[in-house]
Amino acid sequence: MVKSTYQQIPLKNVRIDDPFWSKYDQLIRDVVIPYQWDALNDRIEDAEPSYAIRNFRIAAGKEDGKFGGFVFQDSDLAKWLEAVGYSLTTHRDSSLEKLADEAIDLIGEAQQEDGYINTYFTIEAPELRWTNLTECHELYVAGHMIEAAVAYFDATGKRKFLDIVSRFVDYIESVFGSEAGKIQGYDGHQEIELALVKLYKATGQEKYLRLSQYFLNQRGQEPSFFVKEWEARGQKSFWGGVLPGPASRPNLKYHQSHAPVRAQKEAHGHAVRAVYMYTAMADVADLTRDEGLLQACRTLWDNIIHKQMYITGGIGSTHHGEAFTFDYDLPNDTIYAETCASIGLIFFAQRMLQIEPNSQYADVIERALYNNVIGSMSQDGKHYFYVNPLEVWPKASEGNPGKHHVKSVRQKWFGCSCCPPNVARLVASLGEYIYTVSETELYVNQYIGGVAKATIGGQHLEISQETNYPWDGTIKIQVTPEHEQHFTLGLRIPDWCRHATLHINGEETPISGLILNGYARIERTWQAGDVIQLELSMEIQLIQSHPQLRVNAGKVAIQRGPLVYCIEEFDNNAPLTSISLLTDRHRPLSARFDPDLLGGTMIIEGDAQIDQQEDWKHELYRPLKAVTQPVKLRAIPYNSWGNREAGEMSVWIRMKP
Amino acid sequence: MVKSTYQQIPLKNVRIDDPFWSKYDQLIRDVVIPYQWDALNDRIEDAEPSYAIRNFRIAAGKEDGKFGGFVFQDSDLAKWLEAVGYSLTTHRDSSLEKLADEAIDLIGEAQQEDGYINTYFTIEAPELRWTNLTECHELYVAGHMIEAAVAYFDATGKRKFLDIVSRFVDYIESVFGSEAGKIQGYDGHQEIELALVKLYKATGQEKYLRLSQYFLNQRGQEPSFFVKEWEARGQKSFWGGVLPGPASRPNLKYHQSHAPVRAQKEAHGHAVRAVYMYTAMADVADLTRDEGLLQACRTLWDNIIHKQMYITGGIGSTHHGEAFTFDYDLPNDTIYAETCASIGLIFFAQRMLQIEPNSQYADVIERALYNNVIGSMSQDGKHYFYVNPLEVWPKASEGNPGKHHVKSVRQKWFGCSCCPPNVARLVASLGEYIYTVSETELYVNQYIGGVAKATIGGQHLEISQETNYPWDGTIKIQVTPEHEQHFTLGLRIPDWCRHATLHINGEETPISGLILNGYARIERTWQAGDVIQLELSMEIQLIQSHPQLRVNAGKVAIQRGPLVYCIEEFDNNAPLTSISLLTDRHRPLSARFDPDLLGGTMIIEGDAQIDQQEDWKHELYRPLKAVTQPVKLRAIPYNSWGNREAGEMSVWIRMKP
Repeated sequence: MVKSTYQQIPLKNVRIDDPFWSKYDQLIRDVVIPYQWDALNDRIEDAEPSYAIRNFRIAAGKEDGKFGGFVFQDSDLAKWLEAVGYSLTTHRDSSLEKLADEAIDLIGEAQQEDGYINTYFTIEAPELRWTNLTECHELYVAGHMIEAAVAYFDATGKRKFLDIVSRFVDYIESVFGSEAGKIQGYDGHQEIELALVKLYKATGQEKYLRLSQYFLNQRGQEPSFFVKEWEARGQKSFWGGVLPGPASRPNLKYHQSHAPVRAQKEAHGHAVRAVYMYTAMADVADLTRDEGLLQACRTLWDNIIHKQMYITGGIGSTHHGEAFTFDYDLPNDTIYAETCASIGLIFFAQRMLQIEPNSQYADVIERALYNNVIGSMSQDGKHYFYVNPLEVWPKASEGNPGKHHVKSVRQKWFGCSCCPPNVARLVASLGEYIYTVSETELYVNQYIGGVAKATIGGQHLEISQETNYPWDGTIKIQVTPEHEQHFTLGLRIPDWCRHATLHINGEETPISGLILNGYARIERTWQAGDVIQLELSMEIQLIQSHPQLRVNAGKVAIQRGPLVYCIEEFDNNAPLTSISLLTDRHRPLSARFDPDLLGGTMIIEGDAQIDQQEDWKHELYRPLKAVTQPVKLRAIPYNSWGNREAGEMSVWIRMKP
Repeated sequence: MVKSTYQQIPLKNVRIDDPFWSKYDQLIRDVVIPYQWDALNDRIEDAEPSYAIRNFRIAAGKEDGKFGGFVFQDSDLAKWLEAVGYSLTTHRDSSLEKLADEAIDLIGEAQQEDGYINTYFTIEAPELRWTNLTECHELYVAGHMIEAAVAYFDATGKRKFLDIVSRFVDYIESVFGSEAGKIQGYDGHQEIELALVKLYKATGQEKYLRLSQYFLNQRGQEPSFFVKEWEARGQKSFWGGVLPGPASRPNLKYHQSHAPVRAQKEAHGHAVRAVYMYTAMADVADLTRDEGLLQACRTLWDNIIHKQMYITGGIGSTHHGEAFTFDYDLPNDTIYAETCASIGLIFFAQRMLQIEPNSQYADVIERALYNNVIGSMSQDGKHYFYVNPLEVWPKASEGNPGKHHVKSVRQKWFGCSCCPPNVARLVASLGEYIYTVSETELYVNQYIGGVAKATIGGQHLEISQETNYPWDGTIKIQVTPEHEQHFTLGLRIPDWCRHATLHINGEETPISGLILNGYARIERTWQAGDVIQLELSMEIQLIQSHPQLRVNAGKVAIQRGPLVYCIEEFDNNAPLTSISLLTDRHRPLSARFDPDLLGGTMIIEGDAQIDQQEDWKHELYRPLKAVTQPVKLRAIPYNSWGNREAGEMSVWIRMKP
């Protein structure tokens, strides 16, 4: 079996013990997982029902009724089970495991004779199975089932769920493929491609890797499978919303099927589909040592990171199709930046890190994780953003239909509730994102306190981190090999860091000569008790955007360490656009930790001026008369916005030059 | 018969002879009217077909086929005939009149036994007549027929078309009204209300005024007529696009039927419908001396002008429903600002001017006319904007679905082509907007060269203007009464004018004591040969917006006289957002007339700086490093943008404070 070039340390070998992250870890276990279970069972008052469990009960013949929710509703249960798997890996919990076992039993009961699992088609339209890959998400849902089963197997060692999905995939393999009589197609929503790689890694069965490769290679070939499928069904949408005819013709860019995957140069279409696909492309490129496919991944990565990513790690510039638009088009107010898309970007980055140690991938994981992703969840763990704007004017969200998708308050649940369980599974598996190892190297990609057990060159070792990151840039790392051992320890120097110092066993070591691809590489013979202290300077930085990014012209964002800041109406004068930041050598911004605010946070304060409103009368326009008055500006981390009263929020702030 | 308090001078008594406007006047006659006739006959290559004439031929039984275009397609022919009427009023043209007579004959042939005219229902669904007032525009189209017939009657004295529409309206009156057995309803698209007032004025038949009043009074009463109608048709949309059910429930604000018209305080919904309705409200308030209705007009006027109008006189902040959104929500890039809506705003202002001489109404006419309206048409008269943005990034119009409605290049014609003939009819009737008169007063509302014949207190007089407006603020006015006559001449002092001087027969007259409601009122006994010279100072002004108008924070617009300016990529460095204007006492902007540019225009130039792009590498964000370089900025009148190469355009420009 082929392995990734660089391995992540298995989740079970990583224990997080960190002032910042342990809180989230506990929130996921104590609140989010139980709350989402209630949601899946339609027990959250005043929230949109999920129907997920009920659909499985109906499909299993245990209840009568119609299917409820979206056609891909099963995936919510799958993502929840996946999160449970990760949670059980790090914290055994027999009552949670019992719940999960029952849910898995239910999935087993809903599985059809031939292995097929999908409650929509089982309940509503068994005869239409596989007739509309473009719109119906059957393989997408299968992918989430696979990911869940692998996670649950890794956590518990129980094979039941893994066997269920293996039987499903064996059936899928009998339906799809290049052989005559099989469907030469692929899913409208990529996901199974990356899941099949996980199944391959869990089972060692190469056919799963080959099936993933098949789906990727087939995608975007001419003539278009989606167009043929659409013609075959009479040019109609499955849902009947659009009248038959050209208007219902599949938008191939939306599904990243406009060109063979290797020929795609720019990120297009639905952002989640895109990054899930790029993740699988990186997986397959790695495991099959496919240089052409890897090059396509690098090209797409560059396009996203340098042309289409918000400073918060959000991606997707428009709610029309939840999609990328084009280079440098990153509006803050009509943004999409779906939570799931940032999570998918983290997956993509993680796979790239498993191919080549380059800090840019870990930098983006950090950016998306600390800003967009954890910002999507309320501090109580029970409310979520689907869209993560960089600028909010609550009245506009209400009153301008082009901004209805931008909510100023997190919601309890969504009819399409892909995001909340996605956050849960990511945070519950955070341990996987901290380190990568090879036979001779150990890379520290994220600075998160705790202990991990790694194996390098067949030898066991422990590595621990102690830090108050992201509030503080001091990280104490202890390396404890079983026996004295020679290897390279790579410490990521984040892209935001202007100055880093390194002490090895108390002795300062010049860092500049050690840097390669963004990591300080310390190659030495390590002994138990070796201690490294890394100091990353955490100045408050004012960040500007590329001039092509038109909406941010004349504005800056505040960043400190990995955290992007924002200003809220709660702390500042509205409209926030009337504020201009005034900083220079004599009037710097200052940071101060407030243990009582928002569960303890670092606030940033400074001098600003505000355009006066009082001297305006009835008029809407007038000859320029610049009247300003000084004010204090207060910014908080973007990830904690919207946890007080609803109001305006902005990441980008006007700057008085 | 009741008359308006202040009368406009009939079009036939006004001759325009003006360096600026004669060009447009001639363009309308020589190019626009013939071009639009070709369009109505589907003879424009590569343009969307109109079907308008063809529909009438089919309805008249002269051709076989199906109805083409929108359900309100007939109105395009009506608006063209109305424009022809105005054009023939000022310039007889027997071949054009012959074309129009033939079109009118065709309308007569398509008229049904009972008087009904509507090609859609006649051809496709005679049994569905009057079953869906909400969506189907039958009374709207009738309104445009009426306006056209009145204009054609005024122009030619021929009664045929007037008789056709009178018969149609008599039939409508038998169908609609408060009596049992009649439909207690009104149209989804207001228009007939204002048209009926014109028919009343043309025929003296009070029943037409009463029917208009009925439609207005009935609107928005509970229970909602539109909701009842929707329930009666099984909660379905006429077009079947939306599935039956709550989603297809009429949005009452969209049609301004959410409240009785007198109770409406803010402009809501579809902007054209709104201003057409307010126009009729003002008409009826005036002719019935209805103070409550007038007060509603004033309230709605204030809301638009002080909270919801673009600096160009555009209205409608969103393409969703082509609608108003809410106070101070005036995005420049996702704007709607439909040409027809500004024309409707001009109608509304004109009616208010006929009630009370107040310069604010004439100021808004000027603003909308000189900027939004004439800017919607290309200088060749053959290309049109439907949406009139204040900021254009052509790539975003292509690549961001939220901006697809914002075109960077004028179109030849539209499937829904309400705007081009609306411009034609407005410009062809421009003479009506210059003056208003009462028994003792003559107001000069617009400064446009030419001669008009007025009657004041039963006495005839001539008034002429000579000016190079809007390039120059000098206006020479000559008053020639038949006999020496005492009356008040009111000269509008525009809202943009900082300093005005007045000479009467060569003698300077202090102006400040003469001002009332924005007009300099000269009360005296006038004699033939009296000459007034008005000098309106035309400084270049930098205009700022109210701080609540968030998108314009830190930006200014350039205005000179009534003209709003813009910068185009053709003359300046792109992206335009990277430019900041630098002006102060030592670096003023300067204006210069360029006879060769864009048919002769006043350009404005000045100092600016541009954010350097060269020192940016691959990165999308970086720590602030403000590197600028000086550039010259060149602005052109907004009304002539988009007449050279397609590129970026912006009205609001960053200002270095």
